[in-house]
Amino acid sequence: MSDSREQILEQIKLQGDLVRQLKGAKESKEKIDEEVARLLALKAKLGGDVAPASQKFTLKTPKGTRDYGPQQMTLRQGVLDKIVQVFKRHGGEAIDTPVFELKEVLTGKYGEDSKLIYDLKDQGGEILSMRYDLTVPLARYLAMNKISSIKRYHIAKVYRRDNPAMTRGRYREFYQCDFDIAGTYDPMLADAECVKIVSEILDTLEIGDYVIKLNHRQLLDGMFEACGVPAESFRAICSAVDKLDKSPWADVRKEMVTEKGLDEATADRIGEYVRLSGGTELVEQLLADPKLKAVPNAVKGLEGMQLLLKYCSIFGLDKRVRFDLSLARGLDYYTGVIYEGVLKAEPGSRSSPAKSAQQNGEPAEQATVGSVAGGGRYDNLVGMFDPRGKAVPCVGVSIGVERIFSVLEARFAASKVKLRTNDVEAYVASAHKGLHEQRLRVLNQLWDAGIKAEHSYKLNPKLLAQLQHCEEHQIPLVVVLGDAELAQGLVKLREVTTRQETSVKLEDLPAEIKRRQQA
Amino acid sequence: MSDSREQILEQIKLQGDLVRQLKGAKESKEKIDEEVARLLALKAKLGGDVAPASQKFTLKTPKGTRDYGPQQMTLRQGVLDKIVQVFKRHGGEAIDTPVFELKEVLTGKYGEDSKLIYDLKDQGGEILSMRYDLTVPLARYLAMNKISSIKRYHIAKVYRRDNPAMTRGRYREFYQCDFDIAGTYDPMLADAECVKIVSEILDTLEIGDYVIKLNHRQLLDGMFEACGVPAESFRAICSAVDKLDKSPWADVRKEMVTEKGLDEATADRIGEYVRLSGGTELVEQLLADPKLKAVPNAVKGLEGMQLLLKYCSIFGLDKRVRFDLSLARGLDYYTGVIYEGVLKAEPGSRSSPAKSAQQNGEPAEQATVGSVAGGGRYDNLVGMFDPRGKAVPCVGVSIGVERIFSVLEARFAASKVKLRTNDVEAYVASAHKGLHEQRLRVLNQLWDAGIKAEHSYKLNPKLLAQLQHCEEHQIPLVVVLGDAELAQGLVKLREVTTRQETSVKLEDLPAEIKRRQQA
Repeated sequence: MSDSREQILEQIKLQGDLVRQLKGAKESKEKIDEEVARLLALKAKLGGDVAPASQKFTLKTPKGTRDYGPQQMTLRQGVLDKIVQVFKRHGGEAIDTPVFELKEVLTGKYGEDSKLIYDLKDQGGEILSMRYDLTVPLARYLAMNKISSIKRYHIAKVYRRDNPAMTRGRYREFYQCDFDIAGTYDPMLADAECVKIVSEILDTLEIGDYVIKLNHRQLLDGMFEACGVPAESFRAICSAVDKLDKSPWADVRKEMVTEKGLDEATADRIGEYVRLSGGTELVEQLLADPKLKAVPNAVKGLEGMQLLLKYCSIFGLDKRVRFDLSLARGLDYYTGVIYEGVLKAEPGSRSSPAKSAQQNGEPAEQATVGSVAGGGRYDNLVGMFDPRGKAVPCVGVSIGVERIFSVLEARFAASKVKLRTNDVEAYVASAHKGLHEQRLRVLNQLWDAGIKAEHSYKLNPKLLAQLQHCEEHQIPLVVVLGDAELAQGLVKLREVTTRQETSVKLEDLPAEIKRRQQA
Repeated sequence: MSDSREQILEQIKLQGDLVRQLKGAKESKEKIDEEVARLLALKAKLGGDVAPASQKFTLKTPKGTRDYGPQQMTLRQGVLDKIVQVFKRHGGEAIDTPVFELKEVLTGKYGEDSKLIYDLKDQGGEILSMRYDLTVPLARYLAMNKISSIKRYHIAKVYRRDNPAMTRGRYREFYQCDFDIAGTYDPMLADAECVKIVSEILDTLEIGDYVIKLNHRQLLDGMFEACGVPAESFRAICSAVDKLDKSPWADVRKEMVTEKGLDEATADRIGEYVRLSGGTELVEQLLADPKLKAVPNAVKGLEGMQLLLKYCSIFGLDKRVRFDLSLARGLDYYTGVIYEGVLKAEPGSRSSPAKSAQQNGEPAEQATVGSVAGGGRYDNLVGMFDPRGKAVPCVGVSIGVERIFSVLEARFAASKVKLRTNDVEAYVASAHKGLHEQRLRVLNQLWDAGIKAEHSYKLNPKLLAQLQHCEEHQIPLVVVLGDAELAQGLVKLREVTTRQETSVKLEDLPAEIKRRQQA
């Protein structure tokens, strides 16, 4: 249709040489101008600035980000659809917020992690940052619109300048799927429902066996107090405990003592508690613990856990949840229940986690890895945005879908199953030359009947090439046009897998295709 | 569950006073430290840094952006679902790309508009910018992955530091819905299908009468050449012509002459052409035009238009399309066919566009306003990314959904219809106190059967409040629990609109609710 870029670049080169030659020969201004105009016209043909410099950069997406091709999008859409179904089953309504916020909105909400926030350049105007999660934007939205109760879900990308481990599903740009319940309600009813939602989602996605760890920030604070941690160190010690899912106790203890200045006896007392995990019997044991009994925060936290475990039991989750004192969660804003859904097997070793762990030279008990959901209660965050400090208590859960995508992508790669990435029901093919207008007529008839249909964009494609396209793209039906049949008002309808062909009246074609779909 | 923010702030104030008092009285360090620790513990309770400064900023979203609440999301999801259905009907596959790109990817692709690109702050590492459209990221994706043919759609937000007119659906962060066909094919087959897609989408959305304007960049260039425009001014004159949809010819002519240095006679010759619009007869008339006939680009463009109009006619679009020489499109990268879908009536005056225009003191002919779709062919863009300049010809269309949302939002606001924002099928209510655990049991039964169900998160809500919630949220069924019925294994099932109640066996409840859904 138009000259190729190579041809134009070649012409530009020649024309540039000519202009230099004329200038060198001091030709008339008129003549030089004429040739310069030709040169500029050639450059204009390239459809923009000619920026040869722009050819030099590496063709890539920004660090920690990736494109999703059709295969990945199909997988992703399938996962997100299932998650949304669960959110809606629990009465969730959708909202969306801008991808960036005024920088001040994010300031002071993430503790140590604030250094990972992406800032926008100051181009005159407001100072903006990319959202770091969907929770702070929700709190801003609730305060700004004076909403005191909502059950909302939000599926969107968030941004963290982290050191990504992309093979393990960790990115700088990644999806979060959040469900939160805001409102002043009676204890643990909404919290238990969030735990139920995590289990429904992990069940429906069938990504393997999992456990939902539960803990309570008030209990953690009470336990720190009982162990003798100074109050101003609670958050720092909490963030050290949070590392227990990746590091052994010895390393965490070292961080507490050398970096965070805790005395060794205090650290050891914490060590006794954080290795505990269990169910209601553990709550009762701790309620009888003399050190904890003396601390009101610890008692309140334990009573909360007791109620939560009771509701989880009604929801049929006894075998799914585990009260775990080592669970701390990184973010500063939690004030009550916290939880985390953890896959028991590493991606790719679903059937035999113990074996895989042993192959890696780790003990089988360590096979519990891979947080795929997390959340908790944050009762004071909305109040930080309200001019009068009016609080809206919230509890919510965030599904770590990137990790889930990674697990499923690895599984699909291993199974060598190719996902269908289009929904085309019928391909319209020419049996011989000169039929492209007839093809367009048949396509138009199918589209207007709501049938998903496509064809080759070549005037005279080979029949074999058209049939191969259908096999490659898993299109079930081919409408084959030929002059002889068309003269009788007929077309051939061919089933791709069986290669069976039937003659169908052109006018009946849409109805026949729909009938085959249902069969 | 925990103290309110107000209470904590008050405690912090009192504790702060105490610390200052002790310091003033030069009390022992030990005593002061103890009270400082209490103060810090209180501050820690607020769940993060106490940043009183952060209370001072205005609670808002960044300029030109907005939140979508549940009503808007419901409307938006309905529109996007319909658009995706059309994209899939034409065999589209989904892809997604990161929200930002290396800045160099965007450099030199948008001409004058490049100043509207959002840049990210240099925080050490790569220099990034927010995507300005979905077309350049597609071209980068194709070149990077060496893909030479694809039919893809992409629905995502793009970013432009424009002066937004938000009431008219113009934002700095806004959705684009793009469908593009990449590949080396025969002329106009893919191009005509894009025009068909625009018409299917505008038909299915029922947003009012519309016209799809068609033109050709090669014809425009040829026409400029025939009128005597210097080649290096083609793009500048093209962007002046692009303003004809908003400004009268006199203003555009003035821009050409005074700003872009065109002589008056040339401008007048352009003026003769750009007021022409019509169908195939106009193409034939122009093919016979002596000035145009002499210019190869003009003839090629006209022949392309002729073929496009023929295919559009086969697709039943004779009454929808109009060849319009004033259509120019702003972006630099187009090389062939260009088109734009335009609503004939202003939002809110759909039934009577002429009348609304007259009320504004404008002639009735001016009532054609509101571009809601646009696109064209860009054969050289992918080549700009390929290290060897290998071209992948592309043609595509972008649906201006923000404008469509605005039109539909205005219509819903006027009709006072309240959209349902949740899908809850059954609400589980208590007839009297003390039934919350039974409620949880019934809910669990419904959720496990896949039924969308919710309840109050209060232990003992009033029955009237529960029924009102259902009416407000348009929930069709209420399951009412009461001790007397539960003792017999029964619950009441109430239809919210008719207020009819039936007794149902608890074990039959999920099946009965599903039966009512289908009825």
